Amino acid sequence: MTYSPGIISVLPLFYIGWSDSVLSPSEMKMIQDQINQMNFLSKEEQKTLLKWTDQKNPPDEETFKNWLIEIKKEAAKLNISSKVSLVDLGIQMAKASSGTKSEQIWDSPKVKHSIKELEAALGVSHQLSQLTFYQAVLPEISSGLVEEKSFDPASIQSILDGKYAELKSKTKKLIMDDFFEVPYDLKEKDALRLKILEQCKAVAMQGYGAYAYPEEYGGANSPGGNVAIFETMAMGNISLLVKFGVQFGLFGGAILQLGTKKHHDKYLTKTGTLELPGCFAMTETGHGSNVRGLETTATYNPEDKTITINSPTVHAGKEYIGNALHSKMAVVFAQLIVGSENHGIHAVMVPLRNDQHETLPGITVKDNGYKMGLNGVDNGRIWFDQVKVPLENLLDKYGGITEDGLYESSIEKESKRFFTMLGALVGGRVSVAAASNTAAKKSLDIAIRYALKRRQFESGIEETETLILDYPTHQERLFPLIAKSYALNFALESLREKFEKEYYSTDKREVETLAAGLKSYASWHATDTIQECREACGGKGYLTENEFTDLKADTDIFTTFEGDNYVLLQLVAKALLTDLKQEFNDGGFLAVARHVMSRISTSAKTLNPLSSRNTNAEHLLSTDFQMDALEFREQKLLFSLSDRMRSFIGKKLNPNDIFLKTQSHMIVLANAQIEKYIYSEFKSGIDKLNDSPEKKALVLMLNTFALDAIHRDKGWFLENDYLSGDKSKAIRKVLHGLYRQIRPVAGQYVEAFGIPKVLRRAQIVNG
Amino acid sequence: MTYSPGIISVLPLFYIGWSDSVLSPSEMKMIQDQINQMNFLSKEEQKTLLKWTDQKNPPDEETFKNWLIEIKKEAAKLNISSKVSLVDLGIQMAKASSGTKSEQIWDSPKVKHSIKELEAALGVSHQLSQLTFYQAVLPEISSGLVEEKSFDPASIQSILDGKYAELKSKTKKLIMDDFFEVPYDLKEKDALRLKILEQCKAVAMQGYGAYAYPEEYGGANSPGGNVAIFETMAMGNISLLVKFGVQFGLFGGAILQLGTKKHHDKYLTKTGTLELPGCFAMTETGHGSNVRGLETTATYNPEDKTITINSPTVHAGKEYIGNALHSKMAVVFAQLIVGSENHGIHAVMVPLRNDQHETLPGITVKDNGYKMGLNGVDNGRIWFDQVKVPLENLLDKYGGITEDGLYESSIEKESKRFFTMLGALVGGRVSVAAASNTAAKKSLDIAIRYALKRRQFESGIEETETLILDYPTHQERLFPLIAKSYALNFALESLREKFEKEYYSTDKREVETLAAGLKSYASWHATDTIQECREACGGKGYLTENEFTDLKADTDIFTTFEGDNYVLLQLVAKALLTDLKQEFNDGGFLAVARHVMSRISTSAKTLNPLSSRNTNAEHLLSTDFQMDALEFREQKLLFSLSDRMRSFIGKKLNPNDIFLKTQSHMIVLANAQIEKYIYSEFKSGIDKLNDSPEKKALVLMLNTFALDAIHRDKGWFLENDYLSGDKSKAIRKVLHGLYRQIRPVAGQYVEAFGIPKVLRRAQIVNG
Repeated sequence: MTYSPGIISVLPLFYIGWSDSVLSPSEMKMIQDQINQMNFLSKEEQKTLLKWTDQKNPPDEETFKNWLIEIKKEAAKLNISSKVSLVDLGIQMAKASSGTKSEQIWDSPKVKHSIKELEAALGVSHQLSQLTFYQAVLPEISSGLVEEKSFDPASIQSILDGKYAELKSKTKKLIMDDFFEVPYDLKEKDALRLKILEQCKAVAMQGYGAYAYPEEYGGANSPGGNVAIFETMAMGNISLLVKFGVQFGLFGGAILQLGTKKHHDKYLTKTGTLELPGCFAMTETGHGSNVRGLETTATYNPEDKTITINSPTVHAGKEYIGNALHSKMAVVFAQLIVGSENHGIHAVMVPLRNDQHETLPGITVKDNGYKMGLNGVDNGRIWFDQVKVPLENLLDKYGGITEDGLYESSIEKESKRFFTMLGALVGGRVSVAAASNTAAKKSLDIAIRYALKRRQFESGIEETETLILDYPTHQERLFPLIAKSYALNFALESLREKFEKEYYSTDKREVETLAAGLKSYASWHATDTIQECREACGGKGYLTENEFTDLKADTDIFTTFEGDNYVLLQLVAKALLTDLKQEFNDGGFLAVARHVMSRISTSAKTLNPLSSRNTNAEHLLSTDFQMDALEFREQKLLFSLSDRMRSFIGKKLNPNDIFLKTQSHMIVLANAQIEKYIYSEFKSGIDKLNDSPEKKALVLMLNTFALDAIHRDKGWFLENDYLSGDKSKAIRKVLHGLYRQIRPVAGQYVEAFGIPKVLRRAQIVNG
Repeated sequence: MTYSPGIISVLPLFYIGWSDSVLSPSEMKMIQDQINQMNFLSKEEQKTLLKWTDQKNPPDEETFKNWLIEIKKEAAKLNISSKVSLVDLGIQMAKASSGTKSEQIWDSPKVKHSIKELEAALGVSHQLSQLTFYQAVLPEISSGLVEEKSFDPASIQSILDGKYAELKSKTKKLIMDDFFEVPYDLKEKDALRLKILEQCKAVAMQGYGAYAYPEEYGGANSPGGNVAIFETMAMGNISLLVKFGVQFGLFGGAILQLGTKKHHDKYLTKTGTLELPGCFAMTETGHGSNVRGLETTATYNPEDKTITINSPTVHAGKEYIGNALHSKMAVVFAQLIVGSENHGIHAVMVPLRNDQHETLPGITVKDNGYKMGLNGVDNGRIWFDQVKVPLENLLDKYGGITEDGLYESSIEKESKRFFTMLGALVGGRVSVAAASNTAAKKSLDIAIRYALKRRQFESGIEETETLILDYPTHQERLFPLIAKSYALNFALESLREKFEKEYYSTDKREVETLAAGLKSYASWHATDTIQECREACGGKGYLTENEFTDLKADTDIFTTFEGDNYVLLQLVAKALLTDLKQEFNDGGFLAVARHVMSRISTSAKTLNPLSSRNTNAEHLLSTDFQMDALEFREQKLLFSLSDRMRSFIGKKLNPNDIFLKTQSHMIVLANAQIEKYIYSEFKSGIDKLNDSPEKKALVLMLNTFALDAIHRDKGWFLENDYLSGDKSKAIRKVLHGLYRQIRPVAGQYVEAFGIPKVLRRAQIVNG
């Protein structure tokens, strides 16, 4: 159905006039009079329009819809802006649809005047604003914009994927195979565990298990690649991911990092192929976070050069041990006792089962039963009753026993040795941090796609209901989370880079601190994001077929395992304090105080009251302001913490009291430090790029991340006079402006996460 | 092992001295000299002490432990305060352990002087504060305090339980029966559903299902009692709770509230006994929150006086319908069409299945499959293909069809009729709000009890590790949540009271607004609390045997069903605006503006800069300050929202645009209103009590609730100059002080929730 130019010229007015549907009979009379006076219309056109003004027999819904279709079609040909009036829009549309010969008629002031009179008669000009109209027309146009794509998701994806893009792509291809699908109704744990075991073997067969190991053991000598594989596998079943991590990362990683060549030669190849299923027996019922306090003992027997592993109490049993039911061997962490001296925590290879898969004498294994999630992983408890193993089973890279039965270590101090050994195992935290972000991305992918399909509540203008992503609260809930996932992506890539560089180094303190901080931040981000996305998808989000069930349940433990987040944040804070202490030692308190204070006020503008009141959007969107704010917070918190500690020391409080009194402060400081780190890595990542629409799109995410971070913690910034109340309010306004910019391209932002359709199983966004 | 008074007199000094374990040989020499000069000691005593100063052969651990035991034992006999010095403590202990005859020796200034010299020699006075020592001794003493009980949990419980205490107690007794235990490994949905169905029947048999119904239908005519039963049943299996709610509350409630006597007579008794299983078919796939936009039609056929129910599209199918697989009938919500006129949403009784439980012609039911939780409830989708039912099946309390086939209603306006009908169903929201708080309480009960058992990390002073509840971050995480549950308890009791008073009223706007607000607040409180408690229990929290698995999964939908929380909060805000509009209409804008402004500044002190800077603890703990802060926030948000709306109307924006632009503001306002309401109900509840330790304990909760609420939103209060930065910091300090007061009685606070041990199945706190 196509209308003539004459009809088209008044179509916008008619559409709006009838949309309102409150025209009185006398108004109709005026409209009809006006139509009769419009000489530029043919008699036929006048007749059609008059027919459409019949109050008793109004245009049917079909016709009404056709009007909108026509308007949208014509408007799409023009470069319309929301500034144009309805009258001008009609004229422009008519002109564009006329043949060239009759084009000039639409430039006539008389015609325009005549249409304006109709507008007045229809009451459109005062009843409904022009904006209203564009509300009706623009959604299509803006979804047209999405089609045109203001940036290329594939280009962004390749930036996000980074160095291991190809490996990630190969990993996806592997887990997209039907073989890796796990039916949602497979709930029975033993059957589920067997399935996951088979899948884990299949992954190993492809060489993915051994990826971090040296080539001579079937690996690719690529710890970074291993992190990339782990990060990508989080797009699939997370029980498989965790089983994979336990076998190749924890068990194999301990052999590689804590063992020596004899252990590598004996175990590593078989570990990488899963021929030797093993478990990592560190945590005990009584000791989770406090690894140093483990009670299991490994006592050296000089008479036969063996080691006896023993769990002295029920609570000393190993707890939550993944792979406990399928394993043949365990790496057991225990207090190594030689003579009567305790040399602290060491790891020992202990056989658990024979070829018939019966547990060996002295070994007791108990299933941990059902868990909130990860029911495809066989977690269990293990006790050792005076189990003897040969001395050579001691993983002796950092401490061993000589031929003469003497303890020997390259690291003299027990505490340093302990932390060096733990540091060697940092890969777990790096991997969990990366996988957490993948889980958050996957949730956002589903929630955004759903919000771009789902409509609810009529707007009162369009015939269709409003897309839920058009609700500002929906944007507020989801967009900052997208920005966090983007920011984390860059920070995690930097961490991965540092991690692989330092893989065989014995001083990994920087990597450890970063891994502790980012693991906490990313795992909470996953927990929050999955929850928010589930709620944002309403009842549909609650159905298992839409994936949040497993995403939520399987990742919930990420905030606890590989280190409880609160404990990890304390590590981060302690590292900052240690750095500061180093500075104290170098320069004395006053020098450092001066240094810190000058850093805080670098920042000179910070202390400048004009800056704390600068509500200019350009200022708020500058990296200068954003970086300064996040640095100011970190530095001020660090300095005040150190100051409080000094004062408690002065008051002769003991270290434990001081710790308790400052624990909350440490947590706040650690979060501030991590957020600043993430921002600065995101920023440097963007700085390296050439100008492009993709770079612009990333800057929009950077701004959103930074302003959201400041906004979330505005209480602190206001309390500390860094922001004035007006500036804080301005940040909220600017943030809402950013959300409006994100809205039309939100779908592309999640598309760039690169989650293949096959792995996005959620029914609500498929089909 | 008991020491002589002489030894005891210096034991505190020795204990602390050796704790520090950094005494140099020359310090030892000084100590030994000092001991030799202490004439009040026997030679034997001197010898013992000298032995203990042998650097090369220090007291063994056994001895060291004995010292502490002895100190604790002796100290327990005294009324020691943390103000006493170590020297005085030693003397007092020695005196108390002496026979009366040698008692006076300990009053001699010379003896004291001599011991003080020893203190100096040990370096204790400057190395470690006295506080340190009490840290080592006090835990025992404070857990002694717990035994003494500063308040009686049972008395608090009876205050919390309120009017229906006896009914609650009976309900607990019922569900504590073994019959209601659901094994954790029963995962298969069909088996689980059958079990829950049987349990639901058993509950019905006891008369609990019909409790709200009039006596002639087997009920107790007690809608309030019904809420109390529902609230209590949330301590048990939540699938059973929801099944119960669907059958008796939603299905039965619709018959009772929307039907007339003929329906009551025909259905109500059978509904209450579960002889007639039914479902409540409101939500559609395409329309969840927007009930008014439902697409199912109920068309009246005058020729045979029937109604045809039809689902015009796939998306018009009823969705998430609880009891869909077990039901014989459904209350179907549909657009009622008489002639060609749509009279809006009405409810119709539609048979679904015959006696053989086969679906009737035209009915299609599809299982919703597995869900995140509530897998004991048979949710499904239902479509109607031109299903005819007799006219009498129309629930016609608010709208029916006459003998002549004309539509007739006591409420003329369609929108008013719609909201009146929805209002009649408010019981669902009241019940979910109450059950949410029960779930939160249950989680807190587990997490606090675990935190009072679980120890981790040595303090460096005591031989045992620190209780995790002694970590300030643990207190910060859990205590404000306990306070919220207390506060909500009072607010929910008020709501229940209003609800039962208005049960048969046709204008329930106040109850509706409160129910919408409290359902949102309480369900998010449950979600947050369960999550926090799970994390606070670490890996143990992740095991299904410890209950968080089901608590989390089963209640996660509470934020969505019975109204999405965001939609409900908008209702709350709209109600506030309507009230304000009423005031506008009565007095004109300026009058209202003056009124609101005066309310805001009642409050005169608020605008007084001295008040915004008053950091005095007494002020912060006054209900004047707390109430004023929460009222100020609500009023200011309301006024600024109304002001923005007026300005948008002035700019001729259409209502939809105005709504979108102010949506976030509405959510913030609604939360502020609810929080103020909760506070004020909590406060009035306490005001009614006579002075007692229990009242004091509740005041501590009130203060915690209020200051935490203000602290969480300090950004807003600072932005709006209600608080100065210093005052905001002072609030944090006072809050930490409150946590320290809660700490020794935390166990009693959760004990008062009255959750029976049998229903607290979590393994970590049992046995």
